[in-house]
Amino acid sequence: MGRVIIVGAGPGDPELITVKGLRALRTADCVLYDRLVARELLKEVKDGAKLVYVGKEPGNRGPAQREINEMLLKCATQYESVVRLHGGDPFIFGRGFEECAYLVERGVECEIVPGVTSGLAAPAKYLIPPVLRGKASSVALVTGKEDPTKGRRFVDFKALARAVDTIIIYMGASNADRIAGELLAGGIPSDMPVAVITRAYMEGEKFTVLRLSELRAVESPSIIVVGNVVEEGLRLRELLRKYVGS
Amino acid sequence: MGRVIIVGAGPGDPELITVKGLRALRTADCVLYDRLVARELLKEVKDGAKLVYVGKEPGNRGPAQREINEMLLKCATQYESVVRLHGGDPFIFGRGFEECAYLVERGVECEIVPGVTSGLAAPAKYLIPPVLRGKASSVALVTGKEDPTKGRRFVDFKALARAVDTIIIYMGASNADRIAGELLAGGIPSDMPVAVITRAYMEGEKFTVLRLSELRAVESPSIIVVGNVVEEGLRLRELLRKYVGS
Repeated sequence: MGRVIIVGAGPGDPELITVKGLRALRTADCVLYDRLVARELLKEVKDGAKLVYVGKEPGNRGPAQREINEMLLKCATQYESVVRLHGGDPFIFGRGFEECAYLVERGVECEIVPGVTSGLAAPAKYLIPPVLRGKASSVALVTGKEDPTKGRRFVDFKALARAVDTIIIYMGASNADRIAGELLAGGIPSDMPVAVITRAYMEGEKFTVLRLSELRAVESPSIIVVGNVVEEGLRLRELLRKYVGS
Repeated sequence: MGRVIIVGAGPGDPELITVKGLRALRTADCVLYDRLVARELLKEVKDGAKLVYVGKEPGNRGPAQREINEMLLKCATQYESVVRLHGGDPFIFGRGFEECAYLVERGVECEIVPGVTSGLAAPAKYLIPPVLRGKASSVALVTGKEDPTKGRRFVDFKALARAVDTIIIYMGASNADRIAGELLAGGIPSDMPVAVITRAYMEGEKFTVLRLSELRAVESPSIIVVGNVVEEGLRLRELLRKYVGS
């Protein structure tokens, strides 16, 4: 039985994978990869390595999670070294844990190589600090896409509004207007700045800033950042443009 | 005037730096580095590159942030390519933003290369997912060390207890008992599992699991993870030990 390494590829920039992740990728006999993984990374696999695309397309096309789990298990029985490559970090709104659990429960050895998560890397590219001494002591990473199978579990945006300084929403593009409504109801001022980073570190990247009261559905995939720290990033970017011309 | 790249080195494992961060490090003329940066990374700098230690020791020994800012500016005037290497991610409870602001305000070009943050990577090593479909939809990253200069700004642990599924506390080692008290007062059950990862990915690493009611001051540096997801990781690790023997 082979061994599976579940690797975070980081956000779209192929150089934001870790050195450890890249080494695993280069030595793997079989690589299963996501839709949001930078394609340049696939050129790094060794000659003869098997590449398996397991991306889920918008609108729920592509393999179900159960099928991906089964493919992983099958690869582990056929190859000595298997890499499962996730966009971002495999444990932050990826399915890395479910896959690891499925494998371990069937006697397959499994290791995690963490990656830079898009929710933190996307604002950093625009010089927005998720937390900042004296301005923001806490940041919440939350999903904007609720899973109907969860029953009563859900993100309580009203409670979040009162509890943390910065809120970073993954997969909230299509629900952004509902989320904004709940954050406003929770007491966040309507003029609170919001940054929307669409396709972070990928081709066609877009950066938009607006007020919370103006937030509506946005393009997918987007990271939505709500908090005063957005202004800090804008101020620096403005200075950079003025003095350095970049 | 030179250019400064503020790089996240990731947690203690030197291979958890990004490929981009390592490339910046290898081509820099001058590197300023933190206490928690893996020493192996310093061997990667090119011949003749200047290495400057700017670590802050426990008990507030070492240079003040103002002095580090001034050193960075001085290096930028003397060298074409300067790297400021932070442990973890420079924007997540590092001082990367303050340094970037100081430089940009003085006309120095500055770029951020994000890193894997210790608060997410430490639990992942023990197979603990900070969020998990059906079990945890939100995670907060918070500081356990409050800054007295902040005035009214602080982490409201009671409100956090009601708002998020998982709480990850950075720099909370010495305040852990007070934090536990506030989380209990906020309604988190006393038997909620807590994982403490001390010196994550470094020599002398320690992993401890206890109940929230048992949490007292712990060794520094530690990452403290509060949430039901801790049980998930324990379950998988137990299976791994049983079936795979690792």
